[in-house]
Amino acid sequence: MDRRSILKAGGAGLAATAALAAPAIAQTMPEIRWRCTTSWPRSLDTVFGAAELVSRRVAAATDGKFQIRVFPGGEVAPPLAAFDAAQAGTVECAHTASYYYVGKDPTLAFDTAIPFGLTARQHNAWKAHGGGQALIDAFYDKFNLVGFNCGNTGTQMGGFFRRELRGMADMRGLKFRIGGLAGQVLARIGVVTQQLPASDIYPALERGTIDAAEWVGPYDDEKLGLTRVAPFYYYPAFWEGGAALTFFINKAKFAELPASYRAILESACAESDRDMLAKYDANNPAAIRRMVAAGAQLRPFPREIMAEGWKAAHAFYDELARTNENWRTIYGPWKTFRDAAFLWSRIADNTYENFAFTAEQTVR
Amino acid sequence: MDRRSILKAGGAGLAATAALAAPAIAQTMPEIRWRCTTSWPRSLDTVFGAAELVSRRVAAATDGKFQIRVFPGGEVAPPLAAFDAAQAGTVECAHTASYYYVGKDPTLAFDTAIPFGLTARQHNAWKAHGGGQALIDAFYDKFNLVGFNCGNTGTQMGGFFRRELRGMADMRGLKFRIGGLAGQVLARIGVVTQQLPASDIYPALERGTIDAAEWVGPYDDEKLGLTRVAPFYYYPAFWEGGAALTFFINKAKFAELPASYRAILESACAESDRDMLAKYDANNPAAIRRMVAAGAQLRPFPREIMAEGWKAAHAFYDELARTNENWRTIYGPWKTFRDAAFLWSRIADNTYENFAFTAEQTVR
Repeated sequence: MDRRSILKAGGAGLAATAALAAPAIAQTMPEIRWRCTTSWPRSLDTVFGAAELVSRRVAAATDGKFQIRVFPGGEVAPPLAAFDAAQAGTVECAHTASYYYVGKDPTLAFDTAIPFGLTARQHNAWKAHGGGQALIDAFYDKFNLVGFNCGNTGTQMGGFFRRELRGMADMRGLKFRIGGLAGQVLARIGVVTQQLPASDIYPALERGTIDAAEWVGPYDDEKLGLTRVAPFYYYPAFWEGGAALTFFINKAKFAELPASYRAILESACAESDRDMLAKYDANNPAAIRRMVAAGAQLRPFPREIMAEGWKAAHAFYDELARTNENWRTIYGPWKTFRDAAFLWSRIADNTYENFAFTAEQTVR
Repeated sequence: MDRRSILKAGGAGLAATAALAAPAIAQTMPEIRWRCTTSWPRSLDTVFGAAELVSRRVAAATDGKFQIRVFPGGEVAPPLAAFDAAQAGTVECAHTASYYYVGKDPTLAFDTAIPFGLTARQHNAWKAHGGGQALIDAFYDKFNLVGFNCGNTGTQMGGFFRRELRGMADMRGLKFRIGGLAGQVLARIGVVTQQLPASDIYPALERGTIDAAEWVGPYDDEKLGLTRVAPFYYYPAFWEGGAALTFFINKAKFAELPASYRAILESACAESDRDMLAKYDANNPAAIRRMVAAGAQLRPFPREIMAEGWKAAHAFYDELARTNENWRTIYGPWKTFRDAAFLWSRIADNTYENFAFTAEQTVR
């Protein structure tokens, strides 16, 4: 028996005596208090709730030793500076959407959504088993951040429009409240895009300062009451086939955590990711029924508009690939994955859904 | 200050001294070794891997103190007796599909799949935020079990057929290897159903003892090599719009766990649930391409067959609701949820998918 195995055997024996074992146990379960800044008001209970679920689960899994206090946007950092606060280490972590930060680099859109991108399921497949996690990890590393997806909205609604859209002619010059990469794609097909805080949307639509505005999906959209001033409720948001949120952690702070806390935190983010989508999926059906009862007129986007959007989006992506190395590094393998996923998803899942979702109304 | 609060305050002060605190810490993180029996061979790396991921995560989150050893079906319990072994306490836990046990009660199908049931996303929504978890918990309680979903296959493929199907006439008398509730529904539209172990499917199709056989989806199906003997590969499995697996835990054993271990285990099951679906979604596209290259001929089921299946399934469900109280208790609210989820899912998600999944081929 060599010295190491003697120590090991000795240690196992000694561990049974509480007085000596205690310091080792205390080291592996330190008391840690973190702050998580978010981009959300408390009233968006699905997205804000996703960070709260992580906090509750981490506390429960550590007997309350690892506490993460979750703040609405604006309390410890502005809503759209959550990423920056975690990057700088002002807070240990942040819950936000990576695509809010495309001003730093458009590549930051991939971990949330790009127009005509992956559905929620496909995004998770790309991240976990399609090479996406390694690509995104390497990119976030440049910002001193570690990121785990934590929540998805599913495909969003296209927004509220004051007038009906008959084709591309109605998109040209349309004043649309929409931001990010989606806004840049729509601008290429003639839309006049602008950004407005949520609270300013209603008066702007009422006065006709803007013609249309998009937000999330029925459960969140209903709260804005826009049906009264812009009754045409279009679908789908072809710029958000799924919108994934990310739980960002300052890299140095993450490295300081005991391995067990890191495992618990990653697992809690995955759990919360599934839970947030489930909450939207469970609450959207009743919300859209109430909205239709209140006067919302559901309309699919004319195919012509989606087709022009498709072409504009891919031309834009090819341009970015020529000029931005970060974009190029991710876009190539991402698009290969997307195209294969789209082809496969048409077969079993999409065929099932096309039949089953309408059968109650059509099978006699 | 009453006696209880004195004790509480005293306890908090004393906890700071390691020697006295150690027994309390030791109690909260005991060394625990569990066995998890499964219904899977190791070769089904997606489904077997889902239980292994739970095991790895639970160990990592407890510094190795909570160990769950995962066994392939047949080592500690037969593959289709995993549920029974956890119920009896022969093992602490089991990873299996609840619908394998419909012989005990058809109601056991709800937590995996019933024909024309919920997709993976909708199932999670029903469980977490649509009242499903409470209904299923109350039902599993009758078996002394706690259950957390842990893995989903997505919509499965309809299986391999020796001859092409033109309509209902080709279903009548068709000898089809399919089990469970799905088999009972298909029997009502004239199919002659039978059960065979996976290893017996190939020779039975080759000799023509059976006309067709279903398994899972491309990634698993490819391994059986059935394309050579039954080239028509039909989709979708309208009896499995999603198939959720369950991690069952003996109720008394679960109650004995420290609260932190219970939280860690539940979170790990949710993480693994998302991961297994992601693994199928990432691996199915390449598998189906290889199968088509090897001669598989992809065919959608004729609509007539799916419509007859729809009617037969719902007539069967109504009969069960009249005769089985457990079924009735779950089916009513489940169907209300399903119908609302189907209607909503047609709008944003399904419209996006119908456009985007085909755009690469159709937008010019």
